[in-house]
Amino acid sequence: FPIGGRRQKPRHVGLTMVIDKGLGLTEFGDLLEVAAPYIDFIKLGFGTSVFYPAPILREKIRLARSYGVEIFPGGTFFEVAVLQGRLELYLKTAGELGYTFIEVSDGTINMSLAQRYDAVARAREAGFGVITEVGKKDPRDAVGEIKILNLMATDVEAGADYVIVEGRETGQGVVIYDKNGVVKEETLELLLQGVQNAERIIWEAPQKQQQQALIMRLGPNVNLGNVQPGDVLALEALRVGLRGDTLRAA
Amino acid sequence: FPIGGRRQKPRHVGLTMVIDKGLGLTEFGDLLEVAAPYIDFIKLGFGTSVFYPAPILREKIRLARSYGVEIFPGGTFFEVAVLQGRLELYLKTAGELGYTFIEVSDGTINMSLAQRYDAVARAREAGFGVITEVGKKDPRDAVGEIKILNLMATDVEAGADYVIVEGRETGQGVVIYDKNGVVKEETLELLLQGVQNAERIIWEAPQKQQQQALIMRLGPNVNLGNVQPGDVLALEALRVGLRGDTLRAA
Amino acid sequence: FPIGGRRQKPRHVGLTMVIDKGLGLTEFGDLLEVAAPYIDFIKLGFGTSVFYPAPILREKIRLARSYGVEIFPGGTFFEVAVLQGRLELYLKTAGELGYTFIEVSDGTINMSLAQRYDAVARAREAGFGVITEVGKKDPRDAVGEIKILNLMATDVEAGADYVIVEGRETGQGVVIYDKNGVVKEETLELLLQGVQNAERIIWEAPQKQQQQALIMRLGPNVNLGNVQPGDVLALEALRVGLRGDTLRAA
Repeated sequence: FPIGGRRQKPRHVGLTMVIDKGLGLTEFGDLLEVAAPYIDFIKLGFGTSVFYPAPILREKIRLARSYGVEIFPGGTFFEVAVLQGRLELYLKTAGELGYTFIEVSDGTINMSLAQRYDAVARAREAGFGVITEVGKKDPRDAVGEIKILNLMATDVEAGADYVIVEGRETGQGVVIYDKNGVVKEETLELLLQGVQNAERIIWEAPQKQQQQALIMRLGPNVNLGNVQPGDVLALEALRVGLRGDTLRAA
Repeated sequence: FPIGGRRQKPRHVGLTMVIDKGLGLTEFGDLLEVAAPYIDFIKLGFGTSVFYPAPILREKIRLARSYGVEIFPGGTFFEVAVLQGRLELYLKTAGELGYTFIEVSDGTINMSLAQRYDAVARAREAGFGVITEVGKKDPRDAVGEIKILNLMATDVEAGADYVIVEGRETGQGVVIYDKNGVVKEETLELLLQGVQNAERIIWEAPQKQQQQALIMRLGPNVNLGNVQPGDVLALEALRVGLRGDTLRAA
Repeated sequence: FPIGGRRQKPRHVGLTMVIDKGLGLTEFGDLLEVAAPYIDFIKLGFGTSVFYPAPILREKIRLARSYGVEIFPGGTFFEVAVLQGRLELYLKTAGELGYTFIEVSDGTINMSLAQRYDAVARAREAGFGVITEVGKKDPRDAVGEIKILNLMATDVEAGADYVIVEGRETGQGVVIYDKNGVVKEETLELLLQGVQNAERIIWEAPQKQQQQALIMRLGPNVNLGNVQPGDVLALEALRVGLRGDTLRAA
């Protein structure tokens, strides 16, 4: 490959996290059959997982894990559970369904740092891997880089495996992206300079130009999230220099 | 759920109409298996239905109906039939294929009010449910709110079950959307104030921001159309407050 | 149909070339079952074909050909082979996998006219149909119309069956498209006036507005490429006037 050093699974960097907004069982199986070696995590977006017929949800979870892919429900579902004071029930149900990872976020609700720390710790104790998310969904709630760095440090200390930097479905006007979806270099650099362990960050990067920019800046093994199911092989091609954009630089 | 009151099927409000531009049989079955409880209508977009091998089209129609989902051909096909003076043949063929609903529109052709009334009535007499559409596809043909309100009233009087407000595939520069796809509040309010029965309106809303805006304004049981097959569960999450955007407001 | 004269397969004009970024086997079979009569070529985009499990890639190639659809790997893969001095190996492997067409491009790398001529001729000698591509992927490398016309003439002389005009995945800021994806009339006319055999050109046109503009200018049998799998039937509807946009003009 034109760009060398791409890690193979199992790996702790170079992760690709796919967002699934409601794939049917056949499509889901198709995706795994073709692309499982290039997918580390699948997130069932938002609260969509609650709408699946239970046997189908269980089968998706089983199928993903049988291909060596971790699967977890989106953080919005967690946030509703916290709002309603039902975190225990949420963790119990998640475990029964077969999930092994949980996303802890406060993209919409407000949580104190102590509450957040506690939620991460409780998910860990219940046996889950934990992925947290930083960054608010609504531009009116935007938080600064210092706050984000603090959250990241606390999350990792509480036991989080990875921290997602919010990119939303559009990748526009959120944390490291401006309203056109272009990476804000200054914000990105501030985060990179301030973070203890950049390898724990998963950057949500729904747009190809964003994936490309982050690969150019952070190399083929940058962790990327909110990747569309149909874009997994194209992203892998970007990572190893088999697309014009990264091939030119190689 | 954070937002209560969402109606279950069978229902006469809170409808979700999906646009299908050519899904294959397996994908179509996948969609229904996962999301049929959240889909009321599937529209086979434009004139695409004419291109299917006949056995596949029949099977799609059968499959949809077996899941309690109504399916109908896009209005462009009807318009061509009217242009060619073959409405009878069109209705006969539609019936033989198994369709139970017909879309009556003049998004591109010109029809007098009398012709339109007659077409709705004839489809009704032939045993079909009828969905009409208001709003021109080409910005150069744009019609005002008064005209649209008149059409809506006439259509319902002629026997239409629902009236779709045109949103096109893009949701840009058409009826209630400006060229960036943002809802024009003033137009929306004029239509809402003038209409007799707002529950008969299906708002085409292909973009997530549009679905969100209409849910915020009209509640979880607003009728929405031109929803992408892959967005059905995500829309349902929006309706009940399981996404950041509507959760924040809940 | 409102617009007459649409050619049926097998045909040498009116081609639709689909871009496949990694469809699974079932989706791929679904697409062919529904839409094979409307697809002439499938391009496995960029270098994605290298990531498929070998049995799946072979099965995709076999399946496409069994439906009378030609399938070929994207040019980026060819460019890497040339960069690495492994053109022979590339052609040999492609033949063993069952490909019958090869794309020759220099969207990212630099090739002399002689090298390019030689590559086309060698692929031909090895028994492949050849599709070349003109136009650079990176705006910084943009080439003028004269250069493009020269390349086209040379490619055809060297034995190319078709010449693709680069449109990228986005259709923005490349050859005939401005940065908003609008067709640059002047560039288009210059190319049309200068080219010997316009029927050999396949215009990459990923956006619907681009497909529509080219159909309006060049008729229902214009060759179009980089069509999304889910858009094949909708494009066919555009070609024959079964969508508002082209129906209005018909």
